[in-house]
Amino acid sequence: MPFELTREFIGNLRELIEQNDEQSVADLVSSLHPADIAEIFDELNIEEARFVYLHLNGEERSDVLIEMEDDTRERYLKVLTGEEIATQFIKEMDSDDAADVIGELPEQKQEEILQHIEDVEQAGEIVDLLSYAEDTAGGLMAKELIKVNVNWNIPTCIREMRKQAANVDEVYYVYVVDNDDILQGLLSLKKLLLASPKARIKNIYTADIISVRTDTHREEVANIMEKYDLVALPVVDSINRLMGRITIDDVVDVIREEAEKDYQMASGIAEDVEPSANALLLTRARIPWLFIGLIGGVVAAIVLSRYKEDLGLYPEMAFFIPLIAAMGGNVGVQSSAIIVQGIAANTIGIESTGKKLFKELTVALINGTVLSALMLGYNLIRQESLALTATVSMSLFSVILFASLFGTFIPMILNRFRIDPALATGPFITTLNDIIGLAIYLMMGRLLYAVI
Amino acid sequence: MPFELTREFIGNLRELIEQNDEQSVADLVSSLHPADIAEIFDELNIEEARFVYLHLNGEERSDVLIEMEDDTRERYLKVLTGEEIATQFIKEMDSDDAADVIGELPEQKQEEILQHIEDVEQAGEIVDLLSYAEDTAGGLMAKELIKVNVNWNIPTCIREMRKQAANVDEVYYVYVVDNDDILQGLLSLKKLLLASPKARIKNIYTADIISVRTDTHREEVANIMEKYDLVALPVVDSINRLMGRITIDDVVDVIREEAEKDYQMASGIAEDVEPSANALLLTRARIPWLFIGLIGGVVAAIVLSRYKEDLGLYPEMAFFIPLIAAMGGNVGVQSSAIIVQGIAANTIGIESTGKKLFKELTVALINGTVLSALMLGYNLIRQESLALTATVSMSLFSVILFASLFGTFIPMILNRFRIDPALATGPFITTLNDIIGLAIYLMMGRLLYAVI
Repeated sequence: MPFELTREFIGNLRELIEQNDEQSVADLVSSLHPADIAEIFDELNIEEARFVYLHLNGEERSDVLIEMEDDTRERYLKVLTGEEIATQFIKEMDSDDAADVIGELPEQKQEEILQHIEDVEQAGEIVDLLSYAEDTAGGLMAKELIKVNVNWNIPTCIREMRKQAANVDEVYYVYVVDNDDILQGLLSLKKLLLASPKARIKNIYTADIISVRTDTHREEVANIMEKYDLVALPVVDSINRLMGRITIDDVVDVIREEAEKDYQMASGIAEDVEPSANALLLTRARIPWLFIGLIGGVVAAIVLSRYKEDLGLYPEMAFFIPLIAAMGGNVGVQSSAIIVQGIAANTIGIESTGKKLFKELTVALINGTVLSALMLGYNLIRQESLALTATVSMSLFSVILFASLFGTFIPMILNRFRIDPALATGPFITTLNDIIGLAIYLMMGRLLYAVI
Repeated sequence: MPFELTREFIGNLRELIEQNDEQSVADLVSSLHPADIAEIFDELNIEEARFVYLHLNGEERSDVLIEMEDDTRERYLKVLTGEEIATQFIKEMDSDDAADVIGELPEQKQEEILQHIEDVEQAGEIVDLLSYAEDTAGGLMAKELIKVNVNWNIPTCIREMRKQAANVDEVYYVYVVDNDDILQGLLSLKKLLLASPKARIKNIYTADIISVRTDTHREEVANIMEKYDLVALPVVDSINRLMGRITIDDVVDVIREEAEKDYQMASGIAEDVEPSANALLLTRARIPWLFIGLIGGVVAAIVLSRYKEDLGLYPEMAFFIPLIAAMGGNVGVQSSAIIVQGIAANTIGIESTGKKLFKELTVALINGTVLSALMLGYNLIRQESLALTATVSMSLFSVILFASLFGTFIPMILNRFRIDPALATGPFITTLNDIIGLAIYLMMGRLLYAVI
């Protein structure tokens, strides 16, 4: 059964550390998965962590380091020298993990670490990987993979694999290349295992496979692996030479992160923060959105102040301000969210913009008619003045129509200009929708109170 | 390079279908991946789809059916008899896909299909899988897997695998069981491939592995596979017998769906809808949230109407209604979102509730102080009355404090009662926050205008 971290466990561990009980600490952590030990490290202070760390072997140490939360890792690496990091951690890591860990550090420390990596080949691979942008296939891939020549036979292939496989943790496929290292296809281990020893690679490999270029965006990589149900994806350069492979576990993190980013945008959080982050970090992530909301509120106040006389004469106009403002914001976010999600998951389909807008307009017409009719009935029953009744229903209808179109257009336009469309569900546009809704209401009110 | 569906492609395909050009249609689709053909089917009408479908082989047909969007599949299966579905589609499917497809259909059709599955073993597996709840490990798992006895040697193992492997598409691990089918561990294909032929399974398999029970919730399954970077996870019953396996591609869908559900909740969409859904479906997903927003607006109007005299005397009080209402909602959603996300991704850590609330309170105090001070400065510069200035800043501060605590508590309480905590970022709580914020503002105003 999977391990579950409890406060009791940490309390118990702390006690053992305090008693300097090395044997019990070693027993306690030895049976745990590195991902679990990393969770424990997230809770310990540096001194306690160092005590536990001494009872891990080299590979466990690097695995734990990779699995930690970013800010915990930063805290631990800060107190170590470049040489310690290189010899105690980087040495045992896969190239992609090593590049990720090193890439997070200040440039001077990066240099220091790279100089202390003994294995020149490993150092070279890490330097190569560091040169790719973080959000591309190159930034995600690992150099470790097993490749065989298309002209080999099975025994040569297995012999070569024995040599290469020591470096590669998880092998799902063997990649097939030609003499120039150009990717030709792949061979599943299942096929290799079940093939006759006399077979030649060229007769049993799968030729028509999906690969990505080193500069493919990581969101596209995620969409491709998700769509085609892949566990590993080869990465090639511009002339199709095999450069590395991306495994699904790294892409699962990308999918989670991208989804969380959109969710955070929609709920008004500006930065990626864990619930365990400290109060200052949490404040920094949240105050910008609140500040924009505040400015929106001030602009709304200015708009309202231009209707001070109307509000003095007809204070009942003020009653429906929250309703109109909220509905504008809500409808806008709904319309944007559908588009944002479609763009992110690449399920937006090939419907033309015209058709999308027409559909959105239909939805808005239905919603607008139903909700305005409800308000009309409500105000008639409450025997509000005809002017107020008409103003509320007519402006509600207009606001719903306007906000839908605005909410649909904005993410599409942002996407066209290569700006993250999720911004449309964020503070700026929502606030804008509130204000425009309010302006429609007030203008409509002045007009109708004059007429009716 | 991955295929990208364009309007031109569909137009071209339609034209070929109209011209009855079988050869060209066959050429066009033959090189495509089933996931791509499924995308094409999402765009075609039944007649066109039938024409394309005739040029696919049996396995492609089932793969395409699985990859389709739910509503497209429903549309196609509606026009087929149970016998057609069983013989043309289900026959070639893995047990988990077959159970998913059949599980979506009306009960009578399910019976009909099951009766027409020729292979009794396959029918039995599907019936078994249909008995598990959809959101559990049992509902996610497939029956197809390769298992070997712990007492075998390598050649027996490979011979048995040859028999079993024909049914299993992707093999990443071989599961090791004892004579009673109790799960003992696993063997990676890499190890098997590189082991000496004389080795016995019991000496080379990995014993300490992670498994889940058939009744484990699918969100927990996703969290486990994500945390431990697994591509396949064995599922066992209550006495540890091996029942099936879950592969990462199914879990990627779970992760995406769960994340989208939370995102939709935060943006006020009540059901899972694709951007390509029709206007009626889109309306149905959106109007409930708008209706709750409308009721919230009406309640706000009722609250405001009790302060009609105050608003008549001091119409400037109305100016800051949008600001106060918006800030209450925003702060509440922010606080809830952090907790919701932590619960969903299981990264909430082991901080005590008291500590969480204290941290939240600190953030609220900082945000409240900064933003109220800004409003104080703004209103002083604008030379607004002292009463208004004091009312706005003091109520803003109170609203931020209240909404933070409310926003933190609600998802934690919902979660304790096993209700989806994401509801807290949804319509009901946001609207409640708006109204309570407004009430605080108006009471504060009446008090301060009387005093100052």
